[in-house]
Amino acid sequence: MNRLAIGIDLGGTMIKAALVQRGEGLVVEKARDTEASHGPDHVLDRIAELIRSVADEAPDAVISGIGIGAPGAINWERTSVVQPPNLPGWGVVNLREALQARLGDELPVFVENDANLAGLGSAHYGRGRPYPSFIMVTLGTGVGGAIIYDRKIFRGTTGAAAEIGHMTINFAGDIDRYGIAGSIEAYLGQKYLSRYGRHKLLTRHESIIHRMAGKDLKNLTPLMLYEAACNGDEPAREILRWAGHKLGVVLGASINLLDIRKVVIGGGLSAAGDFIIEAARKSIREYVIPDHRDEIEIVRETLGNEAGMLGAAHLVFQSLDEEAVRSPA
Amino acid sequence: MNRLAIGIDLGGTMIKAALVQRGEGLVVEKARDTEASHGPDHVLDRIAELIRSVADEAPDAVISGIGIGAPGAINWERTSVVQPPNLPGWGVVNLREALQARLGDELPVFVENDANLAGLGSAHYGRGRPYPSFIMVTLGTGVGGAIIYDRKIFRGTTGAAAEIGHMTINFAGDIDRYGIAGSIEAYLGQKYLSRYGRHKLLTRHESIIHRMAGKDLKNLTPLMLYEAACNGDEPAREILRWAGHKLGVVLGASINLLDIRKVVIGGGLSAAGDFIIEAARKSIREYVIPDHRDEIEIVRETLGNEAGMLGAAHLVFQSLDEEAVRSPA
Repeated sequence: MNRLAIGIDLGGTMIKAALVQRGEGLVVEKARDTEASHGPDHVLDRIAELIRSVADEAPDAVISGIGIGAPGAINWERTSVVQPPNLPGWGVVNLREALQARLGDELPVFVENDANLAGLGSAHYGRGRPYPSFIMVTLGTGVGGAIIYDRKIFRGTTGAAAEIGHMTINFAGDIDRYGIAGSIEAYLGQKYLSRYGRHKLLTRHESIIHRMAGKDLKNLTPLMLYEAACNGDEPAREILRWAGHKLGVVLGASINLLDIRKVVIGGGLSAAGDFIIEAARKSIREYVIPDHRDEIEIVRETLGNEAGMLGAAHLVFQSLDEEAVRSPA
Repeated sequence: MNRLAIGIDLGGTMIKAALVQRGEGLVVEKARDTEASHGPDHVLDRIAELIRSVADEAPDAVISGIGIGAPGAINWERTSVVQPPNLPGWGVVNLREALQARLGDELPVFVENDANLAGLGSAHYGRGRPYPSFIMVTLGTGVGGAIIYDRKIFRGTTGAAAEIGHMTINFAGDIDRYGIAGSIEAYLGQKYLSRYGRHKLLTRHESIIHRMAGKDLKNLTPLMLYEAACNGDEPAREILRWAGHKLGVVLGASINLLDIRKVVIGGGLSAAGDFIIEAARKSIREYVIPDHRDEIEIVRETLGNEAGMLGAAHLVFQSLDEEAVRSPA
């Protein structure tokens, strides 16, 4: 029972789906364009088609349910997305009802925020496995987060916890996209880190990044910083260490509040992890109370995009387990 | 069953104990000097005597157990205090065993951090009652905290969560007693707030605080600021608003992380609450993501010291309820 589920990553450009075997990992994985411009009904049809197509690959499988990860807010009941930022004009869409209408009423469907599911995927299939509780930080365009507490997603009071990216570490700092001064995203978000890099490199003519960026620092990206750092470029390393110091500050504050001392770093920019994480490991201790300094660990997630699909499928297993406990046969 | 318990507040100067009726409040309250200089055994004897003395006041009562609040770290099993800062030289002391040895093996004893118990007291007997989940901040010599989640203490992974006082809001700020730069305690702790007040008042000769402090600002205390503010002293109000702004910053960061939007302010300095809280209410919105801005409430706890004893007794009720669920008869 409950050995197989389908996990879906609903993105603005691509929909990805995987059949997941509990405790093992991906069995089948498929993807198609979202075609978001055609509106919600079209996208929902495409999700349903993709689910059928994945299920067809394992005709004998008994599929326990569907888990779906989407960016932005999810309602407490885990049925609906609320104005997903990558699907303009969606408003509130009840994915559970929409998919059950297309695939059958009996199929359990659970919706959750994608950063939370990346955390859940890490907890059960990735680098988070050794830790019953940990903080997940995803470094990408922005800075996302998840709190895994006792191997489950900590949801707060409305399902929107773990907005680590918007925690301020300098109340008088530059503002982020929400107007919050000195949030960690205003240091480590792609746009902000690139801007800081450009400023620093103006006076560092020896850096190979000038050549990499075609002599125009407007082309600078965090990945370029990472590549240069790997090639021994000292200015690039300094910039990443600066970023890592800031990451350590917000992790220190989070550890003080949560008393959760394990951290998993994921997301696209986590490739730049070694330079960032090394610096974070150092600064985190300076911002944590003495009692919390022991047993702090920061590791880099090695799962890629599949973390979200694995987490989505695992949400199905976990939710059905809980329902079984609540209503014993 | 489980209608009465004894709650104890173990302080460095005084031990306070109360018989608490579940859902109602204090029935009997007693206190005596801790006499900490005589060492742990002497203090434990005094706690046991005080418990007997409180129990004697209600000879027909069936007492379910003893809850004890102490400052500093508590072990996960809630049996022992670990180097309580107000009881020098204690090391690790198993209060459960020590009291059971003196009062009988059958009596359940639960130990918890005093700030957490003030939060639990507020949750079940104070201003926190309307809120299933809230953040408690205690403003006193330092800045303490508790996270109440679903009417229980959120304990983190070792029982030491909610160190709000040491969360940084300015990574380049002044250091607190643990060496953490720009923590909220380095702004609102009694010593730090007094220091800030002294600096501000150097150029504000019109303030009545100069007279209140006997012309020597070394005598300035936060309570003096509060009294002056109540008397219309604009410089004092500005200083408290400055403090409230900082409190709002750390609450904003905490709300982003926890998605818990209710805040209860307690502790000795909470008398100065109106000026501080008004400013915090304003700044908190600037540091919280838009989705979290609705439904934020900050209120001032009106329970005084008894919050801790009420929480200690309630910990007994809650713990015994949970044990009953785990092992149904």
